[in-house]
Amino acid sequence: MITLEQCRARDQADELASLRQQFDLPEGTLYLDGNSLGAMPKDALARAQDVIRREWGVDLINSWNKNNWWVLPTRLGDLLAPLVGADAGEAIVTDTTSLNLFKVVANAVDIQRRGHPERKIILAERDAFPTDLYMLQGLAGILDQGYTLQLVDGPDDLGAAVTERTAVVVLSHVNYRTGYLYDMKTVDALVHAQGALAVWDLCHSIGAVPIDLKDADADFAVGCTYKYLNGGPGAPAMLWAHPRHRADFRQPLSGWWGHARPFDMATDYVPDPGIRSFLCGTQPIVSMSLVACGVGIFLQTDMEKVRRKSLALTDLFIQLVAQECAGQDLTLVTPLDHKYRGSHVSFRHPQGYAAVQALIARGVIGDYREPEIMRFGITPLYLRFADIWDAVQHLKAVLEGREWDRAEYRERGLVT
Amino acid sequence: MITLEQCRARDQADELASLRQQFDLPEGTLYLDGNSLGAMPKDALARAQDVIRREWGVDLINSWNKNNWWVLPTRLGDLLAPLVGADAGEAIVTDTTSLNLFKVVANAVDIQRRGHPERKIILAERDAFPTDLYMLQGLAGILDQGYTLQLVDGPDDLGAAVTERTAVVVLSHVNYRTGYLYDMKTVDALVHAQGALAVWDLCHSIGAVPIDLKDADADFAVGCTYKYLNGGPGAPAMLWAHPRHRADFRQPLSGWWGHARPFDMATDYVPDPGIRSFLCGTQPIVSMSLVACGVGIFLQTDMEKVRRKSLALTDLFIQLVAQECAGQDLTLVTPLDHKYRGSHVSFRHPQGYAAVQALIARGVIGDYREPEIMRFGITPLYLRFADIWDAVQHLKAVLEGREWDRAEYRERGLVT
Repeated sequence: MITLEQCRARDQADELASLRQQFDLPEGTLYLDGNSLGAMPKDALARAQDVIRREWGVDLINSWNKNNWWVLPTRLGDLLAPLVGADAGEAIVTDTTSLNLFKVVANAVDIQRRGHPERKIILAERDAFPTDLYMLQGLAGILDQGYTLQLVDGPDDLGAAVTERTAVVVLSHVNYRTGYLYDMKTVDALVHAQGALAVWDLCHSIGAVPIDLKDADADFAVGCTYKYLNGGPGAPAMLWAHPRHRADFRQPLSGWWGHARPFDMATDYVPDPGIRSFLCGTQPIVSMSLVACGVGIFLQTDMEKVRRKSLALTDLFIQLVAQECAGQDLTLVTPLDHKYRGSHVSFRHPQGYAAVQALIARGVIGDYREPEIMRFGITPLYLRFADIWDAVQHLKAVLEGREWDRAEYRERGLVT
Repeated sequence: MITLEQCRARDQADELASLRQQFDLPEGTLYLDGNSLGAMPKDALARAQDVIRREWGVDLINSWNKNNWWVLPTRLGDLLAPLVGADAGEAIVTDTTSLNLFKVVANAVDIQRRGHPERKIILAERDAFPTDLYMLQGLAGILDQGYTLQLVDGPDDLGAAVTERTAVVVLSHVNYRTGYLYDMKTVDALVHAQGALAVWDLCHSIGAVPIDLKDADADFAVGCTYKYLNGGPGAPAMLWAHPRHRADFRQPLSGWWGHARPFDMATDYVPDPGIRSFLCGTQPIVSMSLVACGVGIFLQTDMEKVRRKSLALTDLFIQLVAQECAGQDLTLVTPLDHKYRGSHVSFRHPQGYAAVQALIARGVIGDYREPEIMRFGITPLYLRFADIWDAVQHLKAVLEGREWDRAEYRERGLVT
């Protein structure tokens, strides 16, 4: 039997415990949705004030040089590069994950078109984060030269699906629903063996699990800064491209900031020779500046320590649910095998939607994803072992007390 | 002879004078670059604090509903709609001008392709804001079905250039260098007479001149919120589409926020039936929220009053330069005719680049644009008639004292 006292003892021994003090967390809330929107680093407020009052208010247009707005996308890319196994100059922060995916897949398709025009298939998972599929549909639609989007049902089908007609394989490193974690290195080898290129969506893995894009030999990657990285709501996204493709960097969202010499105000677009060629238009400087606050906390530790605590917390969550909610109709959909587990834990329950609402009413913030999935994000920088105990006690109370079965939830159609 | 006393008297009588108090303006600076980055509304700081501390820090993921993040793009679009002659539900604020131009031109091309596949030409001005041309080159490149970008030299050549092969005409309402203002209604009639569609870039006109997109019968428009609208550095951009095209709204940057039912997490993209179909990925909420502060000041007056003061200030600038700098090698490139004048004034000078640096050293912030153009943005909400007097006195001193001819500027290659 796991006890609350044991959980508290583990908090006492936690080498990451002090990092929690760097976050502003709301009173009376157990926040298990940091995989959707990360918590607020305390220094974000002061940083925003400085950007608004001094950089915008006083230095105004001079800030482009004086306050380094001009290099902010690459500076932030360099700052988070250690979290993804990248070197300086290989990553940027800009635009959104959706747009960055469009850019890198367009680039990958363009590379293949020149060498292997017969490769017309963009391969993705049916269970990918939907916006990735939507962007790939938009791209395939505008390419309109026989390019098609092929969907596979899951990791087991991937091996047979990648063929000599595959141009690009686009995968979520961690599945947004199940928490399944791909073995990136193995998959990249499989993709490359068939002559295809590998594009990774790191939205649910960056800041959650160790990533080594170079060691895994990935081709391109995009990811989110406002989930595990705590960059602030809708903060601009990251983009990484392997330097071996540098001579072929080229993407269709070719705005001024990606130009080699933007202040020449020339008529013709000439891409920057490096990672800056993936920049497009002017970036939201206030939101963007806050990305440094969240990433800065990670840089005080390392991803191996974060991973150890993440696995300890998700193990604890899974074990406690087994111990405390044994008679309930819960099905774990997150892999038990550490090798394939990200940093969130998901359970199916027939009344999952309403149960999540009942948990939220108790101050336990998780979220719901179709179908029937209750999802709990585990963020080692600011969650304690005792928080997991408390969350599971609330879950137990909700399920045992059938708190999901309220008139209000029935009226809203949440109870099935 | 115009005198400083006359300028001060005009400030006394200025019906917009009180609005200046709503901006935080740096001490000792004459800011004539609000056409590049607008000044900071005083309430932006408090708004950012509230978004960061309460909406992000406390309400966290609940803010999507509780604090209306979900409808922020359309709310801001509705807020600024009166500034462009649009109705509610017709405009959004999202992404960047560059990306929004890509979306609307892709939509316009798609509309033409279905009805008139022989129309393969995207027409723009050689002197357009460069990022517009870069995005059109990117779009034409990826369309890759015989679509070409045709450039015209200027307004006089437009009539002959628009033909039965033209799909879309993309124009800057106000030219970023010269300040030339198109007669939108006349141009739209000309474009439509040839069966083409009209897309307007309002970056240098929104908040600067009255705009009536519906009355002018435009098809699509994009524009900037961080220039005359004072939305903050890199604040997301606006996008407007004429509701007559509503059934044909469709654009390739099809991210989750443009989906008709994004929380179904469906595999297939189904666009929202309205203006939201031009949304794509998650937006930078902090930067985006500040757009309301800048637009809010405009809503305390109206664009006719702003225009009257703008023309009075640009007239004064032009007259004072004629009076005070008569012997200098300055050439006005901004139209004298009010009908064709935006809200910035540009002069050519052989040492324009270095002269702008010398003005900045004196605290007069204008900017330089190739070739040889000294550009001064006139923002009626926070500039005074006496400021124009002072700015011209500084210009006179710089030119008469040959302050542009400094060793420092020579070393930097600014002196020709």
